[in-house]
Amino acid sequence: MSELRFDPIRRRWTIIATERRFRPHEFRRREPDEPGELGACPFEWGNEETTPPEILAFGPADRPRNAPGWQVRVVANKFPALRVEGELTREGVGIFDRVAGVGAHEVIIETPEHMRPMADMEVGQIELVLRAWRERLADLRRDPRIRYALIFKNHGREAGASLYHPHSQLIATPIVPVVVKGELEIARDHWRRKERCIFCDLILQERALGERVAWESEHFMLLEPFAASFPFETWLLPRRHQHDFAAASDPTLADLAAVLRSFLGRVRSLLSDPPFNLILHTSPSPHPRAGLPEYWTTIELDYHWHLEFVPRITHIAGFEWGSGYSINPTPPEEAARYLREAP
Amino acid sequence: MSELRFDPIRRRWTIIATERRFRPHEFRRREPDEPGELGACPFEWGNEETTPPEILAFGPADRPRNAPGWQVRVVANKFPALRVEGELTREGVGIFDRVAGVGAHEVIIETPEHMRPMADMEVGQIELVLRAWRERLADLRRDPRIRYALIFKNHGREAGASLYHPHSQLIATPIVPVVVKGELEIARDHWRRKERCIFCDLILQERALGERVAWESEHFMLLEPFAASFPFETWLLPRRHQHDFAAASDPTLADLAAVLRSFLGRVRSLLSDPPFNLILHTSPSPHPRAGLPEYWTTIELDYHWHLEFVPRITHIAGFEWGSGYSINPTPPEEAARYLREAP
Repeated sequence: MSELRFDPIRRRWTIIATERRFRPHEFRRREPDEPGELGACPFEWGNEETTPPEILAFGPADRPRNAPGWQVRVVANKFPALRVEGELTREGVGIFDRVAGVGAHEVIIETPEHMRPMADMEVGQIELVLRAWRERLADLRRDPRIRYALIFKNHGREAGASLYHPHSQLIATPIVPVVVKGELEIARDHWRRKERCIFCDLILQERALGERVAWESEHFMLLEPFAASFPFETWLLPRRHQHDFAAASDPTLADLAAVLRSFLGRVRSLLSDPPFNLILHTSPSPHPRAGLPEYWTTIELDYHWHLEFVPRITHIAGFEWGSGYSINPTPPEEAARYLREAP
Repeated sequence: MSELRFDPIRRRWTIIATERRFRPHEFRRREPDEPGELGACPFEWGNEETTPPEILAFGPADRPRNAPGWQVRVVANKFPALRVEGELTREGVGIFDRVAGVGAHEVIIETPEHMRPMADMEVGQIELVLRAWRERLADLRRDPRIRYALIFKNHGREAGASLYHPHSQLIATPIVPVVVKGELEIARDHWRRKERCIFCDLILQERALGERVAWESEHFMLLEPFAASFPFETWLLPRRHQHDFAAASDPTLADLAAVLRSFLGRVRSLLSDPPFNLILHTSPSPHPRAGLPEYWTTIELDYHWHLEFVPRITHIAGFEWGSGYSINPTPPEEAARYLREAP
């Protein structure tokens, strides 16, 4: 079974993922950044039996489970970093901490079409993907062992995608991730001092300055953040305060789908189909729990869900890993101008 | 001029490196992971005029500056992230912070031989590289604008190397990097509570347990850390307490050179010449300064310099970037066994 281990010096968690174990000589077996053979892909119609059974699917009402005909399909990852089964044990080992690898690792198959990246999908199809995200988040919240579910999409091998077929993933963990925890703490501190949401403040300031806003839709602001870690890093922020993606309305998701279609198309033409990550930041499960009493007392007021889009066209190399600094050769003000002017 | 920008929500710094600026269509111009044309490399004998002037070189006493004959040569990076020239200004911009990009960005050319990676160098040559690191660190400490100098090596394109010729780099910043600051704070907290160094405690515990120690030399322990972020991540720790690489003795560096040669050779054969980063963690400049009064009051007692070796055979993908978790498919206990048994 996998386990979570805490590094007492770096204060970071690692998932030691024994189900994904390799022997040394296997590390060089890299997947090429190519579509692969059509028909052999486990994410196509007719190959449903080659994946774990489906957890959720959108399609015709009379379709049998695990049969073709679906539009979006969610299954467990075949080589999961964490599993739903098992008891959530926590133990100390000398100066170390160890937690059982209980959680979830799911794959959201975004379309039956192998060659249809999100930038080419119908807006309605992207909307189905977003609804699947929302439904899985809401469902996993019911498991009291799970403290956070992170939804993300890796596009391109250099961004970590090992299968070409368009898909996103969900990893649910028994510990709130440090990056999320850091953001929650900062948002809460800001709210306690000012009784205002830090993201709402950011939106107001950036709208007034204008230079880093790519554009705004009915519900979203597309912002190149002031200290962007990567060229063309973009935040998709709901214009009105909302803490929880699982509570996003249908019209909000419909607008987000249209925004994503337009944005991903512009990025693909500007940057020649770059590898990228797309990451959902939302509030954690609202269960009151030992050790985390402060996270939900004001969470509806102080957190603000958003999507982070991260193109992987520069490297996280020795300096970046060792320092925590990023080096970004493209000022976000320039990136915003390119995005505004892109066809 | 470059600038450092602080993200108030993520509490991370980015260097907006305008001297390395690209236009969007240029991002796909990737360097291949191949040696390139011999003789055209700016890091070879005879091409000294194609780099900025040398800052330091080891070679025959009668060699003119910037002429062939050197064994190790240090020059400024031609496209620096930060520059030594300029005034160190700090300003607030609404909720943001901005600091002028004053610092240093140097390249340590480790050998005149284009095709001689560190795993194939003579031990004496590696020792010269380590002496160059030590000398550059000691020299940059004299500049009161500089708070930290980070030395690192990127090997292979996927680890961020853009030139094949063996080299390491130094980036000196006017802000202590968050990763370093975090380690310093944790080490100091431990010392205040226990009056012991946390790294010395780690060494004692790991020696007693044995299962994660690859081996020990006269001066160093090679440890697979309990919560290793990457398969075969390895820490090279001085066995006796030393806070500052710039004060390391000649025998210590000689032993480290021999350890590196043996270790890098084993890793290359086990993992088929993986891309990797090698990162020096050492104490910051000892100048007392505003805002950082606590870092040097006990620094000689609580910090412990070391090298981190990070093979880049798994990806920092959407989950890792968005959560701060790592997913490591190789338990460090197994990695230690493979390293011990490697030829």
